[in-house]
Amino acid sequence: VSVITLLTDFGTADGYVGAVKGVLLAAAPRATLVDITHDIPPQDIAAGAFALRTAASFFPEGTVHVAVVDPGVGSARRGIAARAGGHFLVGPDNGIFSYLFEADPGAAVVRLADRTRFRDPVSHTFHGRDVFAPVAAALANGVALEDLGPPIDDPVRLPPLIAEPAPDGTVRSRVVHVDRYGNLVTGIAHADLSTADPAAFVTEVGGRRIRRHLGTYAESGTDEPFTIWGSSGLLEVSVSGGSAARSLAAVRGTAVSLTPVSSSTSGAGPAA
Amino acid sequence: VSVITLLTDFGTADGYVGAVKGVLLAAAPRATLVDITHDIPPQDIAAGAFALRTAASFFPEGTVHVAVVDPGVGSARRGIAARAGGHFLVGPDNGIFSYLFEADPGAAVVRLADRTRFRDPVSHTFHGRDVFAPVAAALANGVALEDLGPPIDDPVRLPPLIAEPAPDGTVRSRVVHVDRYGNLVTGIAHADLSTADPAAFVTEVGGRRIRRHLGTYAESGTDEPFTIWGSSGLLEVSVSGGSAARSLAAVRGTAVSLTPVSSSTSGAGPAA
Amino acid sequence: VSVITLLTDFGTADGYVGAVKGVLLAAAPRATLVDITHDIPPQDIAAGAFALRTAASFFPEGTVHVAVVDPGVGSARRGIAARAGGHFLVGPDNGIFSYLFEADPGAAVVRLADRTRFRDPVSHTFHGRDVFAPVAAALANGVALEDLGPPIDDPVRLPPLIAEPAPDGTVRSRVVHVDRYGNLVTGIAHADLSTADPAAFVTEVGGRRIRRHLGTYAESGTDEPFTIWGSSGLLEVSVSGGSAARSLAAVRGTAVSLTPVSSSTSGAGPAA
Repeated sequence: VSVITLLTDFGTADGYVGAVKGVLLAAAPRATLVDITHDIPPQDIAAGAFALRTAASFFPEGTVHVAVVDPGVGSARRGIAARAGGHFLVGPDNGIFSYLFEADPGAAVVRLADRTRFRDPVSHTFHGRDVFAPVAAALANGVALEDLGPPIDDPVRLPPLIAEPAPDGTVRSRVVHVDRYGNLVTGIAHADLSTADPAAFVTEVGGRRIRRHLGTYAESGTDEPFTIWGSSGLLEVSVSGGSAARSLAAVRGTAVSLTPVSSSTSGAGPAA
Repeated sequence: VSVITLLTDFGTADGYVGAVKGVLLAAAPRATLVDITHDIPPQDIAAGAFALRTAASFFPEGTVHVAVVDPGVGSARRGIAARAGGHFLVGPDNGIFSYLFEADPGAAVVRLADRTRFRDPVSHTFHGRDVFAPVAAALANGVALEDLGPPIDDPVRLPPLIAEPAPDGTVRSRVVHVDRYGNLVTGIAHADLSTADPAAFVTEVGGRRIRRHLGTYAESGTDEPFTIWGSSGLLEVSVSGGSAARSLAAVRGTAVSLTPVSSSTSGAGPAA
Repeated sequence: VSVITLLTDFGTADGYVGAVKGVLLAAAPRATLVDITHDIPPQDIAAGAFALRTAASFFPEGTVHVAVVDPGVGSARRGIAARAGGHFLVGPDNGIFSYLFEADPGAAVVRLADRTRFRDPVSHTFHGRDVFAPVAAALANGVALEDLGPPIDDPVRLPPLIAEPAPDGTVRSRVVHVDRYGNLVTGIAHADLSTADPAAFVTEVGGRRIRRHLGTYAESGTDEPFTIWGSSGLLEVSVSGGSAARSLAAVRGTAVSLTPVSSSTSGAGPAA
């Protein structure tokens, strides 16, 4: 039994996802289809890449992840398939798999060149249905990655998600995702910190200081924002029972910094 | 083939549901995964409990229902699994299974105590992925409920959904759910009424009287509100081709009463 | 393995879809369930019919498509099942299958008359669960279409989607769908045009002229609207990286016309 996951910006109202699933099941009738999400904002490649980072690694070995956020459909942008982290990846070469490639330096990538694998004709506007679905079905059916096209070593990459600490220990990052609960996910990973304890740092989000670091939401007791290690290993800013995004007027891209306590005593940002 | 259903307040845009499904399929590759809904309003346990009541009982014997609306994640709140109505239930002990327990007085409940069943490590913010998914997969794979932890007899319960009639025959309830069509579902069940015919009663919703009781939407003919027995055995207030919620400015929690016609002749509420 | 698809206007928040899936899996445990969409606007039969047209034909032979947009539930409107395009169709007789019937003049249709196939009792408000789901499961299990009820030859039909050209070559149509990206899908099909090249025509949408016809989104280079052949074989009006619906203030139903260039030189509409 093969698993094929789908992540798109198609939304769920138009029937486009249904068309893709029809093509998949016609070619790979025994595959288990799983929706990761179809609610990526239209053409927001970075949001799609982040959702893949959240979900993809938990699937069983051999899962085929199809990701279609594809503003360049019909242009010269390449289609690719890859093997990374024990999974197969299929989609446009626009950076959507960046964070999965980051996690597996040994990823193998090919350019989709064997047009006999595609639907015929291929539309100019819907490669999810006409190119990526049939290729994903082929992988689910056991076709070798190498049979899909020639290897490439330069897939498009987004800027790294994870911030590097500066020599003085400060970490400058940004809000990389705002989730449904208003949690602000930052590009600050556990491994970034010279100590794993953010209480040794002062966190600033959009110029406001966060003075508490908690282990669980339940410890909060107030509606003051706090930092917490999130479930994906990234530092998050949260408000218990509320929305940190609203409380702090923060959005994706808002600057976040961590400064070691010893060097931040002269800071003068307003307290959150 | 085991069926595992999912009901959460995760929304569909963040990849969290995908992570849960990945964990489920990695551990129970032959399970059939079914989404009941992920659109429960954030942390709205009562809404989750009601959606479970709407859907859960129709699934085949042995189905595993995973429900994660979990504002207390990471706190001392218990995780539980249960057998009720021929199904297995897995989730936080916060009342989300209340209406399924109401329907089966013989339900067996255990506290999730065997940490070897969980992912390792368990995050403090995402037990849907780290605790409830692996436990649900274990149940789908045939692990016995009793192997998951010690029995408990005091799972958290929400207030009863169904209103009891007063000695004079009046039933005081409330709107327990507003559905997509603006139908107002009340906590008044068929069995509550000394007669099954609401035409023998006067219905008031938020102080406005509903004077018609119909058997089908199609009988309405006007945009006046009416009562109708809904598909879950609860009395509903509807407007044909419109929204009773909007027409009556009613929300979840709005008071509803049924008064026997004989005792209501002196009522003076404005007619709806 | 049988595939059963679902298309409804139930939304995803109420548990209604879950109830339908429970009934399906209880009766057809090995079926593969696929959501086409549950986000059809409430009671919008034409939108449901269009989404089915977008998705249904891609599924494997023998797929059972269940479509429930059913404002007449409980009235005398018929329930039907059909065989069309190598698939089975189950739902209310209100036109929702119109475009699938258009595509297969040999479609066979029966009225659902064998009440032993339904759940007992049948509610007056939820035939998706009580009538259409058990009938769909029966078809997935191999029950013959003819065993479900007597044949009918007059299923309800919506007006044709596809516009016919006038004798002078002009095609008058309308926006038949606005998709998530703001693309305006028209009822103008490839076969409608005396030549397949819309550049030989002047397109007007809501009185504004579209002067460009492109092969791909990527050729646009500006935020000016253009026409393009969409993935369903219908002419679309698009704005690259934006929304044609917003740019042109167009909605479903907005008039669209194509006039051959030779006969349009005296036109005086404002340029788009």
